Amino acid sequence: MIKTPYLLFLGDAPDQLAAKVAQGIKDWRPENAVGQFRMEGCKADLGLTDMSLQEAKAAGAKTLVIGVANRGGMISQAWKKVLVMALEEGFDLASGLHNLLRDEPDLVAVAEATGQELHDVRIPEVDYPIANGKKRSGKRCLAVGTDCSVGKMYTALAMDKEMRARGMKSTFRATGQTGILITGDGVPLDAVIADFMAGSVEYISPDNDDDHWDLIEGQGSLFHVSYSGVTMALIHGGQPDALILSHEPTREHMRGLPEYQQPTLEELRDMALMLARVANPACQVVGVSVNTQHMSEEDAAAYLAKVEADMGIPATDPFRFGAGKLVDALAAV
Amino acid sequence: MIKTPYLLFLGDAPDQLAAKVAQGIKDWRPENAVGQFRMEGCKADLGLTDMSLQEAKAAGAKTLVIGVANRGGMISQAWKKVLVMALEEGFDLASGLHNLLRDEPDLVAVAEATGQELHDVRIPEVDYPIANGKKRSGKRCLAVGTDCSVGKMYTALAMDKEMRARGMKSTFRATGQTGILITGDGVPLDAVIADFMAGSVEYISPDNDDDHWDLIEGQGSLFHVSYSGVTMALIHGGQPDALILSHEPTREHMRGLPEYQQPTLEELRDMALMLARVANPACQVVGVSVNTQHMSEEDAAAYLAKVEADMGIPATDPFRFGAGKLVDALAAV
Repeated sequence: MIKTPYLLFLGDAPDQLAAKVAQGIKDWRPENAVGQFRMEGCKADLGLTDMSLQEAKAAGAKTLVIGVANRGGMISQAWKKVLVMALEEGFDLASGLHNLLRDEPDLVAVAEATGQELHDVRIPEVDYPIANGKKRSGKRCLAVGTDCSVGKMYTALAMDKEMRARGMKSTFRATGQTGILITGDGVPLDAVIADFMAGSVEYISPDNDDDHWDLIEGQGSLFHVSYSGVTMALIHGGQPDALILSHEPTREHMRGLPEYQQPTLEELRDMALMLARVANPACQVVGVSVNTQHMSEEDAAAYLAKVEADMGIPATDPFRFGAGKLVDALAAV
Repeated sequence: MIKTPYLLFLGDAPDQLAAKVAQGIKDWRPENAVGQFRMEGCKADLGLTDMSLQEAKAAGAKTLVIGVANRGGMISQAWKKVLVMALEEGFDLASGLHNLLRDEPDLVAVAEATGQELHDVRIPEVDYPIANGKKRSGKRCLAVGTDCSVGKMYTALAMDKEMRARGMKSTFRATGQTGILITGDGVPLDAVIADFMAGSVEYISPDNDDDHWDLIEGQGSLFHVSYSGVTMALIHGGQPDALILSHEPTREHMRGLPEYQQPTLEELRDMALMLARVANPACQVVGVSVNTQHMSEEDAAAYLAKVEADMGIPATDPFRFGAGKLVDALAAV
């Protein structure tokens, strides 16, 4: 668990896109974002107050989060100076970079000397159990995709936000590095040892109030041969009561697999439901979340209307049109 | 890759069952088993020649395989003396114990000094790639089970043996520790990092002759919520042309999951086929392998006849009645 709130380190980000992790934190957990720290030449700006380490400390920040990606995932010497100073000032550090904080001897030495923590969110920090399959109290929703990177995390975060706004009991459960940095907790599922995948999902979504929903972040796709095992573990470890189908209609082939085509929403529905009912016979498919970013508003509306007619369940683009329809569907379960 | 042939170390095995890994090597790869090494008090006997380290060395043995399980997976001091002597005599060591050879400082030091290798087959020895899903040449068969531990490895090994006897081109591809020790190669799939599971299956089953069959060792079950992700990776990484359904009809519930029931063979067939066709649209279910060890011969025969009538494909118990029917079915693909 990463201590919140954060000071968001944007470093020398070459453009706004490079700071998308920091942007995600600011968008989805503004209460976690005390301010931003920018170095000379930084081209990103989250619109947060620029703070020195001392100012952020005084404002309550506990962890400096590296919210920026640079070429090759490197931790540059220019950054190091700030990171070492942050440890000395009493911050923990958190990073989702490929290169690990723990592999930098200077950071490790200073962290040990100062008693601060280094969090590499690409690496599990827990010894997860093997899944026991026992029915847990509370309710769970999982987004499953026709492909990878179609908006499953966004869908869950948008639904979580809408549910909180309505006063419903809801928790977003992160299963990937961006989600973990946004919320400060979760499992980096793609880095878990095979035998413990489903157990790690059970671990992050424990017993809860009967009217509480866990919105579990989806990963991969049952139809993406590289990562389908991870998706399977989410479906059986998560034992969802409700599935949301996630889709991006303009893809020409499966992400990274030119020889593979996306399934239809009907194929996804039937396969996901059959598998989900192994762990939870009451599971239902309650809605469709479509990523319409590459469609005109008119085309998007027409596409969503057709999906609703074909599938008989609500369909929306939660980014474009809000997550209300999907939350209505959950509330009706 | 573990150097063959082996001297099989039975240690102070308390009974025959404790030596079941060694028994598997002797049964399935007798050419890998030069002899057995037994310590005082050993209650197991494979019927192989008892050899000293020097005798086995002279007979060509390259690796001392710890083919025995003892309580807690410990590597006892009594064993250590033999293991150190084996390294000094020029043997590599291989083990599937929970406790790792590499965690024993004395063994590590002697292995380094002598230039010998320590193989812990529970731990991957390769940095596997992410699966690319590209169609590979050659044919592949995978056994999928209604549950874990229903005889999938045995089925593949029995089919491999029968195919070799018929002069067909066949390779058993191990995906678990016992299979790896039997053949000297393979992937300990349950210990692979989630993102690389399917890639590791692609890696161990590369392009091959058009008339060559890989018999890929199955793991887990699509219906076993603890391990279904591993099974999924085998189905998509293995891109099988043929599936064998494996079943044990007398189980009262899923192994280790008292709240879960086994699926029917029809349910397994439909789900496995739907998933397998994502990676290989030509995949077929060609036969059923039933573990009838808890049934009388009469009951077994009646059960198999009923399965054949219901499913319309050959069904047998390869241990009891031979793997011929299943190999006939493969040959017809």
